[in-house]
Amino acid sequence: MPVQLSAPNPSQIFPIPGVNIGIAQAGVKRPGKDDLTIFLLDEGVSIGGVFTKNRFKAAPVQICESILNAVTPCVRALVINTGNANAGTGESGKAHAQMVCKATADLLSLEADQVLPFSTGVIMEPLPFQKIINALPTAIKNATSDAWTKAAYSIMTTDTVAKAFSKKVTLSGEEVTITGIAKGAGMIHPNMATMLGFLATDACISAELLKPLALELANLSFNRITVDGDTSTNDSFLIMATHKASNPMITHWGNDDAQRLLDALKEVSKLLAQAIVRDAEGATKFITLHIQGGQTLEECKKVALAIAHSPLVKTAFFASDPNLGRILAAVGYSGIEDLDQSKIELYLDNVHVATKGSRCMDYREEEGQRVMKQEEILVTVGLGRGDCSDTFWTCDLSHEYVSINADYRS
Amino acid sequence: MPVQLSAPNPSQIFPIPGVNIGIAQAGVKRPGKDDLTIFLLDEGVSIGGVFTKNRFKAAPVQICESILNAVTPCVRALVINTGNANAGTGESGKAHAQMVCKATADLLSLEADQVLPFSTGVIMEPLPFQKIINALPTAIKNATSDAWTKAAYSIMTTDTVAKAFSKKVTLSGEEVTITGIAKGAGMIHPNMATMLGFLATDACISAELLKPLALELANLSFNRITVDGDTSTNDSFLIMATHKASNPMITHWGNDDAQRLLDALKEVSKLLAQAIVRDAEGATKFITLHIQGGQTLEECKKVALAIAHSPLVKTAFFASDPNLGRILAAVGYSGIEDLDQSKIELYLDNVHVATKGSRCMDYREEEGQRVMKQEEILVTVGLGRGDCSDTFWTCDLSHEYVSINADYRS
Repeated sequence: MPVQLSAPNPSQIFPIPGVNIGIAQAGVKRPGKDDLTIFLLDEGVSIGGVFTKNRFKAAPVQICESILNAVTPCVRALVINTGNANAGTGESGKAHAQMVCKATADLLSLEADQVLPFSTGVIMEPLPFQKIINALPTAIKNATSDAWTKAAYSIMTTDTVAKAFSKKVTLSGEEVTITGIAKGAGMIHPNMATMLGFLATDACISAELLKPLALELANLSFNRITVDGDTSTNDSFLIMATHKASNPMITHWGNDDAQRLLDALKEVSKLLAQAIVRDAEGATKFITLHIQGGQTLEECKKVALAIAHSPLVKTAFFASDPNLGRILAAVGYSGIEDLDQSKIELYLDNVHVATKGSRCMDYREEEGQRVMKQEEILVTVGLGRGDCSDTFWTCDLSHEYVSINADYRS
Repeated sequence: MPVQLSAPNPSQIFPIPGVNIGIAQAGVKRPGKDDLTIFLLDEGVSIGGVFTKNRFKAAPVQICESILNAVTPCVRALVINTGNANAGTGESGKAHAQMVCKATADLLSLEADQVLPFSTGVIMEPLPFQKIINALPTAIKNATSDAWTKAAYSIMTTDTVAKAFSKKVTLSGEEVTITGIAKGAGMIHPNMATMLGFLATDACISAELLKPLALELANLSFNRITVDGDTSTNDSFLIMATHKASNPMITHWGNDDAQRLLDALKEVSKLLAQAIVRDAEGATKFITLHIQGGQTLEECKKVALAIAHSPLVKTAFFASDPNLGRILAAVGYSGIEDLDQSKIELYLDNVHVATKGSRCMDYREEEGQRVMKQEEILVTVGLGRGDCSDTFWTCDLSHEYVSINADYRS
């Protein structure tokens, strides 16, 4: 059961003019499962993307990066399969992904470099490209503008809940819409989570703003979550602007309209990222880590990730056991060479647990226990070294995580 | 059940002249459990030690470091308690540890700075120093030279098997003996494992060699194991030389005698370190990671630790599932910026799994499966970048790990 996360209500996930989505069953996953999703984009849609920093980049990631690095990419379709990551598959994996793009392009009278491929699933197994190619006509034929929610389901792997959010904002009197979907539940670590994320808006935004926008949105959302510290080979996040709304073209972020749109884009990105943690494999707790008093953002991040990746901290959260010395230990080994343990403060929600590196005199374990039993927990660590602070999101480590990942392919 | 590790046979764990060990039940742990161990050292014993690199150093670690950093430490006793780590306890924790040292010194007519304190157990709870002080006379009265095996049991926390090894070597016709004990099963990560390790030899070794020797031995053993990536607040490893044997004094490592002794010391340290992994919390597999073809030792280590800390890799080993793309993914995110995925080779024992970053054409999953089912597995990763290679040891991640750490204090 995900933590405080329910399935999207299709009536609240709004279509984006300029984007149609088709879904089919290619048989990459078990028969009867949607595993192929196609986005069809009207001419003129602008795109920005960010991709995994894993040096073992999946074949589709390599192709996407090379297409989006071109001077004027004119992307008109995305092809997304689940069930196979097409990673660790070498040159033949790349050839297989290119064959899928070419087949899609032929059906749509496009060039192959107008199609971006995405894959997610098992690593190091050959992509069953022929099955995908066979199912393309069905997916294309089915494409409609109101299939976002269905697409959120069709890109799931070990996710238990589909992840889709929409938001409308008014810019100079004109309504614009943002809709996004994402998948991911394990192999989740900054830069980036094992995830695919697709965000679209009908707002008019200059094409050259989109790549830096994708980076900024990812940094504020997907790069602040971690489930297990495993950075996937396939992470991909796209932002698409279809320019179908009537707002004045946004050419920089320095005015009210732009800020309102940016805030809404950040909000949808953050909701998607948090949804991934809420639905993390086996998670029973959603944990916000707020690190303050750092000299730099980088050291806040080190501390947050040390806590978030500690199996001992994560199992203590699972057990609702306020064995909070484990958090202090993680702060201690996070890699800040000149950390002064006598300045560390630790709070669980508003319960002051440790001060000056030592247990608070008036801390009572029942208070810690009460917070640890909640499904949502805020951990605040004060480093006492400076003015920087930062926030990350993670989850606990349960028996279910082990079961899911031990049995993933069986 | 630990992996290929049986309890020490007391008749093969040899006493070290100059070292007597006494054990008592102080009541820090549950009644009826040995939890206090005292080493009594003859005058003139030389000591070298290495301690946790966690910035949150436990009180006893701070005291040990300050005593051993003195110009001529004359240590005559070690006091070791389990059940409480005396970490995250601030100034009062340090005062409590000092009171234990002072009480020990008074009973033995020593100065307080001739007593080294060690603690292991729960973090951030006040040390029940009075219970320990009350039990000191019993421990001292019981001290004998043949209590090494019993001491290996009395320093255990979540260990399921006591860890003790002995070795005899002949130096210029004179027999010398090495005996070591260690504890540790979780919170195990280089620099160092959550462990206490005590190694003694009756060999004559110059006092000034001992500190660098402790570092070298730790680097080749305890700093090459990881269970969960959590570096403890209390890690301590001591090497003691009692000078009771008749070998010619070793003043440098440049002759045959010295090399023979060094090899034996390394062997005992490695056996102790590997025993910790074999007995790791919930472990069902003992995994040797051999990384070759690195440009530097540092990058071999990065790759080994990325694999060893990946919950996805660890759960795949637990399930005996040759989902080996997870290993490639970990290599990819290990932090080598200019890694070329098309040069990566992967072997499971002698089964060639991936070549040039891609699945081998003739790799058959049954072969991978066969190796994954073994209790001892060698993973070899070739980076194809240089001539450096290195070896680390780790284990799988099982349901039992979660259970042990979720229920640690209950």
